[in-house]
Amino acid sequence: MIVLGIDPGYAITGFSLIEASGSQYLLRRCGAITTPAGMEFSQRLSIIFSDMNELLDTNRPDAMAIEELFFGNNVTTGIGVAQSRGVILLAAAMHNLPIFEYKPSQVKQAVVGYGNAEKRQVMDMTRRILNLSEMPKPDDAADAIAVALCHARSNTSLLRQYR
Amino acid sequence: MIVLGIDPGYAITGFSLIEASGSQYLLRRCGAITTPAGMEFSQRLSIIFSDMNELLDTNRPDAMAIEELFFGNNVTTGIGVAQSRGVILLAAAMHNLPIFEYKPSQVKQAVVGYGNAEKRQVMDMTRRILNLSEMPKPDDAADAIAVALCHARSNTSLLRQYR
Repeated sequence: MIVLGIDPGYAITGFSLIEASGSQYLLRRCGAITTPAGMEFSQRLSIIFSDMNELLDTNRPDAMAIEELFFGNNVTTGIGVAQSRGVILLAAAMHNLPIFEYKPSQVKQAVVGYGNAEKRQVMDMTRRILNLSEMPKPDDAADAIAVALCHARSNTSLLRQYR
Repeated sequence: MIVLGIDPGYAITGFSLIEASGSQYLLRRCGAITTPAGMEFSQRLSIIFSDMNELLDTNRPDAMAIEELFFGNNVTTGIGVAQSRGVILLAAAMHNLPIFEYKPSQVKQAVVGYGNAEKRQVMDMTRRILNLSEMPKPDDAADAIAVALCHARSNTSLLRQYR
């Protein structure tokens, strides 16, 4: 099973592709879709949509994992991220890709085994599970890896449960 | 000039098409894109995107007018609306349609001539300017008419200013 992990944004959208075979996890690819700051917002959405479609066409994942959105201090940024997230969900839906949404605490639980874990712990466990010498940059790509791993591990657990 | 007015939502997206010739305004069409409550959210976004594309292909407007998003009490609803709005902006961008965003106060100013006007006054002036016996339902369509009229009138004013 190949899981596409997404950390949505409008300036930087992190992505990862993780292959899961049983309890073995392999990071196949990761990176970020970036859009220039000065560009009209709707054009930035066009780039994100187009790049998402290319990612989906090229890598044919079996599922998409994405964090639930919550709003911090900056509502204006939050609105922009939500608009971008809508375009990302649209691209997945148009590829008939099952979408799984996780809260930050669920990612922490699945990766570290503890819902209140610190971000540093999540990154360290993600790195170990995937046998990486260091976590990739930017942070958005690293976050996209963690959410994909969360889905891969949650999914494995469910399969075990019903076996 | 034909202006597409949009009141974005995920359950109901109001739309209107207004033809402006000088200071004459004609309501050509209005209505709502609706999606069923029980449907998966990304599928609802697909319907909105597909219906927006059909609206744009069929009516070939010259501009899109849409209200700026602000967040009220319900942040969860706000996130859903923002995600839908992203898909709407994407459809417009993919049709190379210029997008104009207005604050509620700008709509009031352009339609009633007073930025603190009540909603009832906006609806009454919109109805009079367009020579309608009553404002169309649902409210989302009526709001989409007001924002399109705001753009048509703002645009006319600018043309006059530079003539």
